[in-house]
Amino acid sequence: MITKYTCGKPIATEAVTVSFPSNDISGFPFENSLNDGKFTFAFKMEPKDIVYGLGESPRGINKRGWVYESYCSDDPFHTETKQSLYAAHNFILLSGSRQFGIFIDFPARVSWDIGYTIQDVSEITIDGADFDIYVISADKPLEIIREFRKAIGKSYIPPKWAFGYQQSRWSYHNAEAVDAVIDGYNNADIPLDCVYLDIDYMDSYKDFTINDKAFPNFDEYVKEKQAQGIHLIPIIDAGVKKEDGYCVYEEGKANGFFCKKADGENFEAGVWPGVCCFPDFLNADVRRWFGEKYKTLTDLGIDGFWNDMNEPALFYSVEGIEKALDKAADLKGKNLDLSGFFNLKDTFMGLSNAQEDYARIYHNINGEAVNHQRVHNLYGANMTKAAGEYFEREFGKGKILMFSRASYIGAHRSSGIWFGDNHSWWSHILLNLKMLPAANMCGFLYCGADLGGFNENSTRDLVLRFLALGVFTPLMRNHSALGTRDQEGYRFENPEDFRDIIQVRYRLIPYLYDTFVRAAENDGLIFRPLSLDYPDDPIARECETQLMLGDECMIAPVYEQNVSGRTVYLPEDMLFVKLSGERVDKYPLSKGLHYIEVALNEVPLFIKKGKQVPLCRPATRTRDIDREKLEYISNI
Amino acid sequence: MITKYTCGKPIATEAVTVSFPSNDISGFPFENSLNDGKFTFAFKMEPKDIVYGLGESPRGINKRGWVYESYCSDDPFHTETKQSLYAAHNFILLSGSRQFGIFIDFPARVSWDIGYTIQDVSEITIDGADFDIYVISADKPLEIIREFRKAIGKSYIPPKWAFGYQQSRWSYHNAEAVDAVIDGYNNADIPLDCVYLDIDYMDSYKDFTINDKAFPNFDEYVKEKQAQGIHLIPIIDAGVKKEDGYCVYEEGKANGFFCKKADGENFEAGVWPGVCCFPDFLNADVRRWFGEKYKTLTDLGIDGFWNDMNEPALFYSVEGIEKALDKAADLKGKNLDLSGFFNLKDTFMGLSNAQEDYARIYHNINGEAVNHQRVHNLYGANMTKAAGEYFEREFGKGKILMFSRASYIGAHRSSGIWFGDNHSWWSHILLNLKMLPAANMCGFLYCGADLGGFNENSTRDLVLRFLALGVFTPLMRNHSALGTRDQEGYRFENPEDFRDIIQVRYRLIPYLYDTFVRAAENDGLIFRPLSLDYPDDPIARECETQLMLGDECMIAPVYEQNVSGRTVYLPEDMLFVKLSGERVDKYPLSKGLHYIEVALNEVPLFIKKGKQVPLCRPATRTRDIDREKLEYISNI
Repeated sequence: MITKYTCGKPIATEAVTVSFPSNDISGFPFENSLNDGKFTFAFKMEPKDIVYGLGESPRGINKRGWVYESYCSDDPFHTETKQSLYAAHNFILLSGSRQFGIFIDFPARVSWDIGYTIQDVSEITIDGADFDIYVISADKPLEIIREFRKAIGKSYIPPKWAFGYQQSRWSYHNAEAVDAVIDGYNNADIPLDCVYLDIDYMDSYKDFTINDKAFPNFDEYVKEKQAQGIHLIPIIDAGVKKEDGYCVYEEGKANGFFCKKADGENFEAGVWPGVCCFPDFLNADVRRWFGEKYKTLTDLGIDGFWNDMNEPALFYSVEGIEKALDKAADLKGKNLDLSGFFNLKDTFMGLSNAQEDYARIYHNINGEAVNHQRVHNLYGANMTKAAGEYFEREFGKGKILMFSRASYIGAHRSSGIWFGDNHSWWSHILLNLKMLPAANMCGFLYCGADLGGFNENSTRDLVLRFLALGVFTPLMRNHSALGTRDQEGYRFENPEDFRDIIQVRYRLIPYLYDTFVRAAENDGLIFRPLSLDYPDDPIARECETQLMLGDECMIAPVYEQNVSGRTVYLPEDMLFVKLSGERVDKYPLSKGLHYIEVALNEVPLFIKKGKQVPLCRPATRTRDIDREKLEYISNI
Repeated sequence: MITKYTCGKPIATEAVTVSFPSNDISGFPFENSLNDGKFTFAFKMEPKDIVYGLGESPRGINKRGWVYESYCSDDPFHTETKQSLYAAHNFILLSGSRQFGIFIDFPARVSWDIGYTIQDVSEITIDGADFDIYVISADKPLEIIREFRKAIGKSYIPPKWAFGYQQSRWSYHNAEAVDAVIDGYNNADIPLDCVYLDIDYMDSYKDFTINDKAFPNFDEYVKEKQAQGIHLIPIIDAGVKKEDGYCVYEEGKANGFFCKKADGENFEAGVWPGVCCFPDFLNADVRRWFGEKYKTLTDLGIDGFWNDMNEPALFYSVEGIEKALDKAADLKGKNLDLSGFFNLKDTFMGLSNAQEDYARIYHNINGEAVNHQRVHNLYGANMTKAAGEYFEREFGKGKILMFSRASYIGAHRSSGIWFGDNHSWWSHILLNLKMLPAANMCGFLYCGADLGGFNENSTRDLVLRFLALGVFTPLMRNHSALGTRDQEGYRFENPEDFRDIIQVRYRLIPYLYDTFVRAAENDGLIFRPLSLDYPDDPIARECETQLMLGDECMIAPVYEQNVSGRTVYLPEDMLFVKLSGERVDKYPLSKGLHYIEVALNEVPLFIKKGKQVPLCRPATRTRDIDREKLEYISNI
């Protein structure tokens, strides 16, 4: 059962698609207070209670023991002590001594102290007095999740080819670089379906333009790649370059489609193209206009996009830079003391994504000027909605691949997400794993992390182990940053190990796709913490290095360097399967702890009693997959 | 057997105390080359080979799969992709298909590509042509380590009270704050032996001065604390404030004791006191002078110190700041493009510890001007040697507690080390664990990390779990940074859990101290990877979450949040002991994998067959420990 409580006059987020009667907040069933325009509520937790949720967020599956903040943030440093990532997914689920779910539908800042200040108390603070809270109750946690998911509408389903292996890098600077990647994979006989175009495919980083020198005859090039079974996936950024004569800028300016400052002038800030204006995605007319811009590229045959920098990321504002340069000029020739030095350094370091810049932005929502800070967490979601709505109008459902960096619940209906700019850290294999069920709970089924790690240099073994988890994530994309070591599979010694891993993915695609569609249709989870399936098993309850996959499987990736395997916990007897290329090795294992050997070219999988998993024949493109020729790994 | 190879004319580091005949580098037994003044050598690794060593360094016990750099670095961000920490410990040990140890005695940069570029190849590059390399061979890895340790001389042994629990914070700003900490611990009945004085105890951050407003009558205060059984441990920084009339500065200036620039003027850079000069610790006269400065504090009854910022850390140089401000002034009023913006931001972010500043420094070594970059890794070690030599002259061995942030092998004879500015990250429990055996191999026995984590906010459970590892580390110090959450044990709810953990330390002190002294006297390790004790056990060989302790025990701290225990691997039958306050619970466990429950107030310990561990009665100060009243936890 879902009970909706309303306080003040909430801004419509369109997160919830089902209409619920509003109850006055005075009836809200948790201890609460409204002070200084902020609403705070609290609940006690018993030692064995687990708090799930918060979608794409730092730390564990069990969110206890930290304070999180819902505030979409462009922060490429996903360490344990971060409070926010790129998304704001305001759903939590407590399970243990009692069970309930809570969804806070509020697009500004929410702080979640889940036993940080006091270990057995959660205190949640909503930075405003206009919001809806939904309290969801049912007998079992999975029913609470299903109730919630029913309320927020069906999840986005991408095209089938989006389950193929995808290779990305910031950047493949030109057609030759893209071709070299395709050749590299082809020559090593490693499957591949997509190659990504990061910001450099554009003319001066201008959305919906092509750098003709780097990609001459782009329309023919797209078709040539299509013929090779390769989809090119360009990036689209939130900021629109301020440049006279650039049609997107000119149209936006002429129609008043950009975000404003208090004085009515366009808000401007520096992003990749230099000074940009920012489409006011909170406005339906702007969404329609911007969504149709994607036609420039779909007309050329492009059928997939990733929306980036839409928190929105701001490298600097013109005002911020001026202030910093003024400060520097004042200090010139003066004897700088230590606090002066740190103040100066902090000034330059704090230029990006500055709170005072966000506070300068205004949106036009149904004719009303609304400060950005009140709706910050909707910006990226509504950028993606702009595209998603256009794609659905124009092509129908599931034809265009679309995923976003920033998101809010509701965006799950029109797109997937990726988990942003992670690092080539072994610990980020587990961070990726832990986010999967949480993102699923919030409706985001098509998701994944940058396999191999985006920032800093990776290693051969890290890429292989990361990919062996990625075999199971709907978005299976290897992506890395400018200036880091190349990490395409064929770049390393013995590329056949990469083929062995990625081939397993292709053999599993029929199974993974069906599992995905079933979860989307039934408001279910692809990935579940073991605790949801085995709530009475104390070891399973706390296990955060393994996940249940669909109704049939358990996954347990290797996440440490220099090991030949890992310890795994089986909450019941299972069939342990090692998959490698065409090879399928099976070992029945009993309930309990086991050390399993897993080589760098092997993918471990565990099949439950009474279940089976189909494998198709190996293929190097998703289009070549023959769904009729299946063999089964059976534990019946 | 140790074979010494010499190339060129090495700078004397005094790392090795035994005299070995020099062999010409042409006989060096590994594939090598000397190009552009750099010496490179390489060796192949079999799949099962483990490479140990590098002392205080990032990542795992097995160093394979990364590239490390020996270059003492003031970097407070100990993530997986770092290459250097504060120390330069140039010893590695390969064990598996064959065994050998290598010590590179060279005080400038050394790069260690241990299977990063190619998984089965190590390539080591020495950034110079004047060095000694020692190749150490023996039948067993532990014999290689012992041979090496014999060559570098006996490890520092601190006073017994240095095994007590120590509380630190940047900063306890005045005597009232220090007293509040002691009262907090006393009132909660939690043992305590030391309270640290971070930079704010000084007058304007000037070494060997006292802020009289914050600590009036400091000499009486020190004695009052001594009467309470509390040692005050002040920090000493490498940089000496440039201030007319400040005696340390005036003496250093008058005697030409500071590092110079090429033009013969003193090198100056900003650190805590603002602009500083840097004692030329590479010069024996300077060491003698600076070492005797500690007398100012030992005369007051101070008997412990920590030397900091001695990589040396440089916040900025006067030249660097001027250049940055000039750049800012040039950009004023101009239209800043994106690369201009990032260049400007990077300029300010790169002001600290800039390579061009290090390259401006010159030392006076026996009358010769030597550029700092040639001896960088000796600077902190020689600062600490200055103090250690004074203490030994004045007080004899083992009377004064001394540990340092920066270090080079050789400094282990006169001091301990701490592992620098870690984070309040769960992953740093394991990083701490992994560094212990590596530091031991290089002679650093008295060592430990900032328990609870230095940077960013900690949580109650993290501090408890961190302390439960710290129970076994010779230096058991809780330390945290300015602006972070207070993390003294009594600050959290149910402080009795902290008492339970720290009391266990005090009960173990006779055992831990004896184990320490035995390792120091026998050139042994306090902490060993399981692989050294069980080389034929494939699970033990790869285990990096447990350690052998002394001849009797194995330790296995809990390192994850929100768990009631952990999985542990027993390479043989052992007695599992849970220690908590006065409580001792024993569970015989058989060889193999086990899930063990460990509450937040419990310390897990494993005792080998045929061994026993003494426990003394609980005490709240080390001086109250009665070594005559021991009980034994016996697995005989």
